[in-house]
Amino acid sequence: MAKTINRLRVVIVGAGFGGLAAAKRLAGHNVDVTLIDRRNHHVFQPLLYQVATAALSPADIAGPIRAILSNARNVRVVLDEVSAVEPACRIVHLTSGRVIHYDALILATGARHSYFGNDKWAANAPGLKTIEDALAIRRKVLLALEQAETEEDPERRQALLTFVVIGAGPTGVEMAGAIAELARRSVSRDFRSITPHCSRVLLVEAGDRVLPSFPPKLSAAAASSLRKLGVELRFGDPVSDVGAGYVAVGHELILAQTVVWAAGVQASPAADWLHVERDRNGRIIVGADLRVPRRGEVFAIGDTASLAGPDRRALPAVAPVAKQQGKYVADLILGRRVRLFAYHDYGNLATIGRNSAVIDWGRLQLSGFIAWLIWSCAHIWFLIGFRSRLTVSLGWLWNYLTYQRSARLITGEIPALPQPGHAQPIERKCA
Amino acid sequence: MAKTINRLRVVIVGAGFGGLAAAKRLAGHNVDVTLIDRRNHHVFQPLLYQVATAALSPADIAGPIRAILSNARNVRVVLDEVSAVEPACRIVHLTSGRVIHYDALILATGARHSYFGNDKWAANAPGLKTIEDALAIRRKVLLALEQAETEEDPERRQALLTFVVIGAGPTGVEMAGAIAELARRSVSRDFRSITPHCSRVLLVEAGDRVLPSFPPKLSAAAASSLRKLGVELRFGDPVSDVGAGYVAVGHELILAQTVVWAAGVQASPAADWLHVERDRNGRIIVGADLRVPRRGEVFAIGDTASLAGPDRRALPAVAPVAKQQGKYVADLILGRRVRLFAYHDYGNLATIGRNSAVIDWGRLQLSGFIAWLIWSCAHIWFLIGFRSRLTVSLGWLWNYLTYQRSARLITGEIPALPQPGHAQPIERKCA
Repeated sequence: MAKTINRLRVVIVGAGFGGLAAAKRLAGHNVDVTLIDRRNHHVFQPLLYQVATAALSPADIAGPIRAILSNARNVRVVLDEVSAVEPACRIVHLTSGRVIHYDALILATGARHSYFGNDKWAANAPGLKTIEDALAIRRKVLLALEQAETEEDPERRQALLTFVVIGAGPTGVEMAGAIAELARRSVSRDFRSITPHCSRVLLVEAGDRVLPSFPPKLSAAAASSLRKLGVELRFGDPVSDVGAGYVAVGHELILAQTVVWAAGVQASPAADWLHVERDRNGRIIVGADLRVPRRGEVFAIGDTASLAGPDRRALPAVAPVAKQQGKYVADLILGRRVRLFAYHDYGNLATIGRNSAVIDWGRLQLSGFIAWLIWSCAHIWFLIGFRSRLTVSLGWLWNYLTYQRSARLITGEIPALPQPGHAQPIERKCA
Repeated sequence: MAKTINRLRVVIVGAGFGGLAAAKRLAGHNVDVTLIDRRNHHVFQPLLYQVATAALSPADIAGPIRAILSNARNVRVVLDEVSAVEPACRIVHLTSGRVIHYDALILATGARHSYFGNDKWAANAPGLKTIEDALAIRRKVLLALEQAETEEDPERRQALLTFVVIGAGPTGVEMAGAIAELARRSVSRDFRSITPHCSRVLLVEAGDRVLPSFPPKLSAAAASSLRKLGVELRFGDPVSDVGAGYVAVGHELILAQTVVWAAGVQASPAADWLHVERDRNGRIIVGADLRVPRRGEVFAIGDTASLAGPDRRALPAVAPVAKQQGKYVADLILGRRVRLFAYHDYGNLATIGRNSAVIDWGRLQLSGFIAWLIWSCAHIWFLIGFRSRLTVSLGWLWNYLTYQRSARLITGEIPALPQPGHAQPIERKCA
């Protein structure tokens, strides 16, 4: 596949875990790489929930793509968005109007949340995929606490202090645990009218247990940790409606100002660009070497690709799959390897608050504090760049020792708070 | 002034340096304090320019007001905005519709930038007073570099790489130095088409020297440091127009995508609320005990107040003045002190880039690296809270050793980049 005179042009779309791994593997080799992303930064998504709950700053878990690839002189980073792909001409069209030619194309465009056809829920139940998503949720949670502090009407105050997380996969479990710590513990000394116990945090799951991709024993351990943090678990009914200030679960109407969506994802529109077959989550069904069918020079990796593992189930949408696939495709393009892609599963982790996590290593299953320590070390280790590792470690240590949340900033304009009535003396009020 | 049965109600408007100092001094005493701010966070304004130039994250220099006053059980923090004051009834009206009664009122509402009657310049020449301002400037500077990387037209590319700072007071000098370091040094390895020397940074000042409030010797030292960083200085002509992509200085038209305003401030509308006399910057002319004339129970401090120092010139709009005034007024309300307010001037500092600063201690004047070390220690010392001190110290050390800027994130939606034409091979282009 390598050309000798004209260098091979490799175009990578998306600088998530998969795209970045491919770019790093191709760095320094005799190919011209163009990495296109519509953001200027790579995000360490597993810790996004800590930005959403004010424990970390965006720059702690995100770094400029250019800086990460600064020394990769054969890699050019382009801040732009792909609008279309013309596989017949091997051309990528960008929204700026520019076009880029490729000899090999790697689609690593990731996924967005899916509302199962109810896109109007998005306005009131934001999901968590980008820095902007995280800042919007942080703003929403912190503003609800501020408004509750001055709200006189007990029912309205309770709605402001009710936080609902929809979906009990790893993201939902982590969000619910972190919101419970923030709303029920960290800020407790800072408010005068509301007390921590006024806050309700609900985790809503249509299935019958949290962390359905983990063994039942670990689900039970996680559920127990969540309950200790004060999270109410609600199983068995799907969400039937979400609107401004409420969420309907089965036949129950829950009044809640803050609703977070962690229930489903949908692949980005890479399959549309190529008009190829996709699975029900919109992912391109790729061959065992990650090539798009009938397009030998186009590859799809990470959340963009659908590939069955040895157990015939689709590989999970996690960072290690994307990274391994990025490296594999890069090796394939460099002519290095001929075997088919095989995913090496090094285990499955999820965390619940400041003292507890669950780890599934197949035969060995861990939960509790030891699992949490391993989870912390693993996440700091995999963070991009020394600076972030050090900052995040210190931030966590500080949060752990003090129960403080250091990034509790509400940015953007503060909306007018519609609260008629006269100022009251300082007293605790709780429904 | 103290009541024995009903506790004295003190209302403070604004949680900047002045308002916060007053609230801290009143903490634990036999008064009920209400601190009103339209943001939930206090900002350490002297370091805002480091957020604007991607060296620090917002949470490094800002902290939740509630957390700062967490242990002050007699202080209630209210997130809201004052819409009017009724001094006859001793009532403050909030935009939420609520009203708050006071026995003593401290106005510490600070200042905004002033465009000398040309408010339409604001859209293209943002100033630097809030976290939002800093993030908007950061976004603008980083986007200009990104767009320059792919721009084919030499004239347009040069405009993208031209950064103009208007006003050579401390903020303007600090901004110009930091932008020069960012655009001409920190990012140099990260881009492929543009080189550091493509960038122009201009500091425009209508007067005849930088840092006009410092002695001429220190102005000359600062100017020399700026020139070493590659900043072009332009003296003697005021700005006559600012529009999209240009700024007019005297008879010269400078094409520049990024223009930052650091030329003037205007007090917030506290004087309008009270219908009292103000100076030409909109500040309330207060008595020597910081009381508003004919309103003995209303005080104005910091950038909201106009008070002449011993040299008959108005006290400077700096943090130490606001802090000392906040403490003084709190003592006055607590019945502690009867002397008139006297400002203790501990010196005047400004920094220029990573190695140089100027310090004016009256007889002793310092410039260069030693001054920069003193400036760094002073700023870290005065940062609110141990966490920020540690994070900022580490961040600075990291930046210093590596020339990196750790917070180079462009957040918010990326606009479509209108750049027709075809992708070019990797090569350096510079007008």
